[in-house]
Amino acid sequence: MAVSVSLKKLAEILGLAPSTVSRALKGHPDISRATQERVRALAQELHYKPSALALSLRNKRSNSIAMLVPFLGNYFYACAVSSVIRSAYSSGYKVIVFENGEDYEQEVKICQFLQKSGIDGLVVAPARTTNDLDHFVKLQHEGIPMVFFDRIAPNLDTDRVLEDDYKGACTVVRHMIDGGCRKIAHIALPRRYLWAQKREKGYLQALKDRHLFTDEKLIVECEDVSEVYRITRQLVLHSGVDGIFAANDAFAVHVLSVLRQMKCRVPEEVAVCGYGNEPSTEVTFPALTTVNKDGYRVGNIAAGLLIRRIEDKEEVPTVTRLLKPELIVRDSTLSVDR
Amino acid sequence: MAVSVSLKKLAEILGLAPSTVSRALKGHPDISRATQERVRALAQELHYKPSALALSLRNKRSNSIAMLVPFLGNYFYACAVSSVIRSAYSSGYKVIVFENGEDYEQEVKICQFLQKSGIDGLVVAPARTTNDLDHFVKLQHEGIPMVFFDRIAPNLDTDRVLEDDYKGACTVVRHMIDGGCRKIAHIALPRRYLWAQKREKGYLQALKDRHLFTDEKLIVECEDVSEVYRITRQLVLHSGVDGIFAANDAFAVHVLSVLRQMKCRVPEEVAVCGYGNEPSTEVTFPALTTVNKDGYRVGNIAAGLLIRRIEDKEEVPTVTRLLKPELIVRDSTLSVDR
Repeated sequence: MAVSVSLKKLAEILGLAPSTVSRALKGHPDISRATQERVRALAQELHYKPSALALSLRNKRSNSIAMLVPFLGNYFYACAVSSVIRSAYSSGYKVIVFENGEDYEQEVKICQFLQKSGIDGLVVAPARTTNDLDHFVKLQHEGIPMVFFDRIAPNLDTDRVLEDDYKGACTVVRHMIDGGCRKIAHIALPRRYLWAQKREKGYLQALKDRHLFTDEKLIVECEDVSEVYRITRQLVLHSGVDGIFAANDAFAVHVLSVLRQMKCRVPEEVAVCGYGNEPSTEVTFPALTTVNKDGYRVGNIAAGLLIRRIEDKEEVPTVTRLLKPELIVRDSTLSVDR
Repeated sequence: MAVSVSLKKLAEILGLAPSTVSRALKGHPDISRATQERVRALAQELHYKPSALALSLRNKRSNSIAMLVPFLGNYFYACAVSSVIRSAYSSGYKVIVFENGEDYEQEVKICQFLQKSGIDGLVVAPARTTNDLDHFVKLQHEGIPMVFFDRIAPNLDTDRVLEDDYKGACTVVRHMIDGGCRKIAHIALPRRYLWAQKREKGYLQALKDRHLFTDEKLIVECEDVSEVYRITRQLVLHSGVDGIFAANDAFAVHVLSVLRQMKCRVPEEVAVCGYGNEPSTEVTFPALTTVNKDGYRVGNIAAGLLIRRIEDKEEVPTVTRLLKPELIVRDSTLSVDR
């Protein structure tokens, strides 16, 4: 068996900093493709084992995982945390929970704290306002494995779990069309969010699939539920829509209440769909058709990926798990078979 | 200044085990009153400082707090955890979160794990099924301070935060009577739960305060929401009630849906109240009158009590904070002024 070389030695021969070599081996986007290939070629030639560092870290494993989410008051995140706690606990890990409160500054502070905390890994859904990912890159340089869920960092090479918002939106809008809707509006989330773009694309694809006309005026960006009253009245009274696909359940629940005030029958005159399957969608009248965002499933997969990465000796390529969302049909839409 | 004696020395002189002396000083129920007084008298005489142990523990503080709740999927507990995380974080503590899943066995295992984990303290709402408190007593013997919230352990001398269920129930039922109800039923939780007893007592007190007749047949114990359909029909069709006070929001939300099926107008024919102020109560039709269980407030107070106990040098007597619940009036009840 060949004797393996150290990362430091590898760096010395290449004339690079050890951190550069480490990042190159991980396929970090800051390192040019040419350098990555040069480093990999030499690493292979000299039998460098990427697990050497991992092994040394393993000796000081703390058996604690950190989990960072926007808000625990949000049902989806609460379920995801619950699921990670269960999975982690059954594998002998405890879970330290943090909230970024949708605040980038707070998230940076927490990540600085995590750098010195000796955690074995991090499961994270970053704040809405996070654009700069430096604080996560720093954790990665410390050798802390990360799994992103729900909201991903496209430029960061980590494991990821997310639900297919495009497919979810496409499925629910197709269901509305199949139930008889011919003019469906979309109350959209601001387009600066990746998931908002995906839900809008899914909506457009469904119209296209069913050969319906696309009208840009029927897509209304909405920042806050307080705008739903005005938007819903506008869509029903002036645009004459027969279906409203709201980009989240909070909007959809408000749409139902506005339509009730307008004495507009749901689903006969206007069908309504939400997105998320929050517990409140079960108890509205009529009960809301929506797309299930399953925090338990997402958390379970995220925890599994993270623990594998902490414990496996071999460095495997990162994976992105894209989960198929589930349509929940209730009474706010008409089904084909009714 | 007098030189202080150690706990060990104190135990030696008294001919007791150090753990017995420690428990006696803490007023532990396992230690007889006579022994407690004998220990306290000598401790005072010899200038024993109870903080000596605390001080030695402080040197190896981990700056981590554990929090153990039934389920994070429950909105109240999710908010309490969120609040403890925020308070703890701003005081330099991280929070390790555990779920007992309403399972006594699971809770015992977690507490065994916590005994060896070096945590500085615990905030806990025990499982419904927990009767034996030995696992918590063991943590107390290890010198780990605890704050119980929502569900308390009556025989354990710890800090406690809970909401006044008796007063909450009394307030909401009085509100129903003041709005015109004369025959109010109570869909109760099983009486083996302390909080269920308190809500029932509050209901009875309100009837008494307003000089209404108490009918045992109008108090129906309910184990599960699946029984709500039968119970509601029975109460309306056979007992002719004009108000239903459900012991929790889940029951109340189901009552609303059964009454809608029965074409019974709410609140004109039957007024309905819940308990808890879960997010779903805002979106039912009509929106549900309920009592607010404020997880954020409870968590904030619990964290404050725990951190004080971890950091304060003096051993102060334990406190029980009983919080006044807030009545949330919505559309499922009639108000006096309408």
